[in-house]
This record gives sequence, structure tokens and C-alpha cells, in this order.
Amino acid sequence: MKTLDTLPKKDGFYMPAEFSPHHGTIMIYPERSGSWRYGGKKAIPAFRQIWDAVTEDEELYLIVSESKFQKASSYLKNNRHAHILTIPQNDAWARDTAPTFVKDNNGNVRGIDWKFNAWGGDFDGLYADYEEDNKLAREVCQILSYDCYHAEHFVLEGGSIHSDGEGTILVTESCLLSQGRNPQMTKEQITETLCNYLGAEKVVWLPRGIYNDETNEHIDNMCAFLNPAEVVLAWTDNQNDPQYPLSLAAWELLHSETDAKGRNFTVHPLPIPVYPVCVTTHDLEGLEFAEGEDNREVGERLAASYVNFYFTNHSVLVPQFGGENAVSDALAVQMLQEWCPNRKVVPIPAKELILGGGNIHCLTQQIPK
Amino acid sequence: MKTLDTLPKKDGFYMPAEFSPHHGTIMIYPERSGSWRYGGKKAIPAFRQIWDAVTEDEELYLIVSESKFQKASSYLKNNRHAHILTIPQNDAWARDTAPTFVKDNNGNVRGIDWKFNAWGGDFDGLYADYEEDNKLAREVCQILSYDCYHAEHFVLEGGSIHSDGEGTILVTESCLLSQGRNPQMTKEQITETLCNYLGAEKVVWLPRGIYNDETNEHIDNMCAFLNPAEVVLAWTDNQNDPQYPLSLAAWELLHSETDAKGRNFTVHPLPIPVYPVCVTTHDLEGLEFAEGEDNREVGERLAASYVNFYFTNHSVLVPQFGGENAVSDALAVQMLQEWCPNRKVVPIPAKELILGGGNIHCLTQQIPK
Repeated sequence: MKTLDTLPKKDGFYMPAEFSPHHGTIMIYPERSGSWRYGGKKAIPAFRQIWDAVTEDEELYLIVSESKFQKASSYLKNNRHAHILTIPQNDAWARDTAPTFVKDNNGNVRGIDWKFNAWGGDFDGLYADYEEDNKLAREVCQILSYDCYHAEHFVLEGGSIHSDGEGTILVTESCLLSQGRNPQMTKEQITETLCNYLGAEKVVWLPRGIYNDETNEHIDNMCAFLNPAEVVLAWTDNQNDPQYPLSLAAWELLHSETDAKGRNFTVHPLPIPVYPVCVTTHDLEGLEFAEGEDNREVGERLAASYVNFYFTNHSVLVPQFGGENAVSDALAVQMLQEWCPNRKVVPIPAKELILGGGNIHCLTQQIPK
Repeated sequence: MKTLDTLPKKDGFYMPAEFSPHHGTIMIYPERSGSWRYGGKKAIPAFRQIWDAVTEDEELYLIVSESKFQKASSYLKNNRHAHILTIPQNDAWARDTAPTFVKDNNGNVRGIDWKFNAWGGDFDGLYADYEEDNKLAREVCQILSYDCYHAEHFVLEGGSIHSDGEGTILVTESCLLSQGRNPQMTKEQITETLCNYLGAEKVVWLPRGIYNDETNEHIDNMCAFLNPAEVVLAWTDNQNDPQYPLSLAAWELLHSETDAKGRNFTVHPLPIPVYPVCVTTHDLEGLEFAEGEDNREVGERLAASYVNFYFTNHSVLVPQFGGENAVSDALAVQMLQEWCPNRKVVPIPAKELILGGGNIHCLTQQIPK
């Protein structure tokens, strides 16, 4: 592994779209007791469904701490597409802590090691000690032998960007301009940095993301590419819902903007769950918070959105919230199946995932082919 | 023209789907002063857009009273696909008062002359004198030389039925079982009558239609076939909206039922306008109600739904409500374009139409090819 201090764009590298072919997917075993109830036990069934779906299509690299190695191995033995890597970490959000991968036209793939500060550092970060998470991207590159761009001067999580692979990056202003990221930089400087590292020509800035999303409203919970110039947008028809003005602003922005190639966007509205997904007393059982960690509270509305799906090579893994949202769940599966006729839509029970603070997309990071 | 007292099904006749080829469309000029502001003047621009779209694709038969013949002719002169028929009528809802057409496998087409009682007669009808409307179907058959089934023992409006052309009829219980229609008949007898006249094998009964729809919730405002076993359903994601339980019940019924050929239904949810379309003081200007007529009131919520679209041979004419519902309007156009990729979606400004009490589908009746 080489550490590179050059700029990917100058080197001919760019970030492919998630819908383009993958070599594999990086995930992390759920262990953090402030995120995952009973030290991960409740979430494991959902994780196993994701691991199974991923390994049907591509390689899975599962990061675990040493103490969970045996347990993880027992779940994945006999699965020749699953590979376990022992790396210490602070939580399971591979999207945000694993490398962002870029490639060039010769098929070379490299990682980017951004600065990670737990979604806001001292300003509004979600946990105080994130040193292992911040080191993770570099260690993954080392173990998997990818050259790695050193971008520790720039705070970024993978969940705050989407790429169409053709020069366009989607982000939210609420996240990338937040005081907890890169407050010393102007919007123009951030745009330039994103273009330089992701090999892009244009950044499209949606104003906001999902209501009450503790990541400062990551784009990956709000809006995702299905194809170049074709996106899915989290939507609600309920004008009394606090999500309504946020989705409306994004809809209007997307209809007033073009992508890097000058194309208009086709926007598919995907309704959020009809019934707000809120934390119950029961949901808090089995959580143990560390000092300095943002605590879950009863009644808190979770940032439940079906846009936090993940593309494997041939599937779409879609969150399902269950209970009174059964109809919304079915509707999301059906709509995604219509928009992705050549993929298999795989529903994943996600209540334990959103309780952890994110969803399927947040837990996965693709390695391009 | 022959009057027939036999049953279409026994004679080998059935009701084709609206999405199947048309010879033409019947419409009626807006004149009733309790439905159309300033005696129709405000609604004419929307009607003209419909006439233009229809005559691009098929023949238009426009029914007018003698006093409006000149006016109608001036709008349609030089349009060789437009034909004006002078027949007296009480209002402009051709869907409900013109004949329902059936055909056989030799290409013969016949009309059905149901009993019309203005959506409920003495029980909850919308106007007291509907004699001209009740005679209209028979007169149309006479002028256009279609043999006509005499079904005056059965109260039915065309807007309360949808046919897939392959043996399945969609209806709502709220309408067909209402006290103002055929209260002497059981649900089973109504099912049998529908099958006998429409040449069908199965009636699928949705419980309800659109909230506050004064037709006792006609199916044609709620759910429509795009193809056999594929329907569009009026939807809302707002669980506080009175429409929510009605749409949910229909969704569940459709997912628990099969059609006449045993196929499951694919259900496409189409959001109603986000902002309820309600009557303003301004909207009442220019209306004059007759004695015994149901009056519009300020604040009344209108049964605005995009499902009240109409298929011409190559287009879908879709209602648009304007103003604060511009985004909902655009969304409906986009979704219908996705679901009907081989048709041209034509948006029609429909605020004056819904004020009249119905929409594009209610104003049109297809004559099959």
C-alpha cells in the first residue's frame, strides 16, 4: 500500500456510482453498546440477512474486533464469499468510516482516507472517542492492499455524498456546511475539494435531508441515484409533517438544476413510512451509553427512510420498519421494483438498524470492480 | 336502432376496457348553472383542451342544447373529428348519463340504457329534475344508430364501474350498495346484474372511494385499470387525512383479491393533492342553484383525485389542480407517464371541473372500436 498526497482527479481517478459493478462490500460487526441493544444481539438477524444478500452477488469483507471473531466466523463459515478482517473500531457504520473508493479507466482502484469525527466532533458529534473509526479507512486499505489517498485535512463521511460516476456529486448543505465538519472552508472550497477527490465536475447541493437525522441529514437517507440523472427522493404527502418542506425544497432544487453533463433530473418520489418511527421504552432496553455519547430518548423520532437502500451487483436491499408501517413497507418495495426492473428487491427488517442510528446504506461501503 | 330486453352476456357482449381502442368519445357541453360558473364560461377553456386532445386521437360527439349549438360550433369548426349532437340534458356528466357500450367478438357495438336518478334520487340525489339525463342514453343510441339494451330497472352510473375487458368489474360498496340506488337488491343480485349486463365473471368490491365524493364515492375517482390486473389507486401518505383509511382499505382488499382470471392485482398508488382542494367564496361566484339542488358551500372539501384521468387512444388526460398543489400535479403527471410509457400524458387544468362536481373521466364516455 502506498499513501498518496496527490489529488485523485489529477491522477485520473473518480468515484463510480454505487449502481455500477462492485468487487465487494465492506461491513462492520455491530458491537457498540450505545447503538446496538444487548451488545448487538438484537440486530444480528438483520445483519445476517444483509450478509447473505451481499454474498449472493459479491465479496463481503466483515470487520470485527478480536473478541467477536469467533461469533462472526460461526455465522459465516461455509460462505466462501465472506472474509473476516480483525480491525478495532468504535461502531459499525462502514459507509462513514471505511474508505471511499475511486478508480481510473485502467481498472485501478484506490481508497480515500477522510478525517472522521463522529458526525460533528466537539460541535455536535455523536460520541467522544472516535480514534479507531478515524483510523479504519487507512487500515482497510492496508489489509486489502489498496493505495490510499491521504485526506485527513477534510472531514467527510461516505454517507454524505452520492456519485453518479459521470461527474456529478449529490450532497446536502445541512451536513457539508455544518459547523462540525469543515467550518473554515467556504461552500466553493468544499465544492472544489469534493471535485478534486471524487474526480467530479459538479456538486448538486440539496438544502436539507431527513428530519431529525442525527448525521446532520446525510444525503444517503434522502436522495440516491438509480442511474445518471435519475434519482429517488424521500417524500411525504403530509404537508403537516416536518419532512414535507425538506422534501419539497429538494424536489424544487432538483427540478431547477442540471447534472454535470447538463441533463435534467428525473426525480422519483419514495414515501417515507406513514407512521413516524419513534423510540419506545422497550426499544431502549439493552442499550448502554458511554460518557459523552448522544443518548436515545423515549419518543424521539428516528430518521426512517426507504432511500437508505443499498445496491449489490444484482439486488436492492430495502429497509422495512414493520408494524403499522407494513403498507408503507410494501409500497417502497413495489416502487423500487418498478424503478429497478432488472434487480431483485430484497426487503430487510430494519427496526433494530434505525434504532442503532442508521440503516442499510450506512452499514455498507462498496468496492468497485 | 333496436331496443333489446335480452342480457348482453347471453348475447355474447361485454364491456371493453377503457384502455382498449376507441371509435370515439361522448361529451356534453357545460351549461347547468348550479354546476358551472357563469353558465359554463369559466369551465370552457378546460373543456376545449379536452376536446382538442380527444380529437387528436378519435371522434368526438359533443352533446349540446339547442341554445348552445352556435357557441359550440364556433369552437369546433374546422375540426373534422368533432360532431355536435343536439340533445337536451340536465348536466354535463357524460360518463354517468351517456350509454355504457358493450361489444361482441364480431365487432358489433351496443349501448346500455341504465336508469339514472342523479346519484341517489329522493334519498340523496344531487338534483331533483333529471328526466332529460335519464333519457339521454337512449337518445344517443338512436342518433348514433346503436342497438340499445333496456336496463331501466337498474340504477347505475357509468362512473361507478370499471371493466378490465377480461371479465373483471371494479366497483365501490359505498356507491352500489347505497340506499339511493337499488336498495331492494342484495349485493349478490347486484353482482349478478353487473355480470349479466357487462359480460363479466367477477365483481371486485372496494369498500369505499374518495372522501366527501358526492357520487357516493364512484370507483372512477378512486381506482382505475391501466391493464388487466394492474390498477392505479388514489393514495395519501397522511394518516391524519380522512382519505387515509379509505385508501388503505382499498389497498388491502386489492391485495387479498384476485381478478376474474385468478391473477393478483398490481396496485400503483397515486397520491391525491397534498393540499385539500376546498371551495372558496370566490369559487361560488357565478353559480346559481335550482330548487332541490345540492348547493356548494364555502370550505367544503372537493373530491380532488388524479385517478379521474381519461384514456383516449394514445393519451392520458390528467386533472391538474394548480396553485399550492403544483408539485402534486407534476408528480401525478410524472407517475402516470412512468406507468403508461406508450401514451402521451396531457395535463388539463381541472379546478373548474372539480368545482362542477367531477373531473375528466366523469365528463367523457368512450365508444369502443
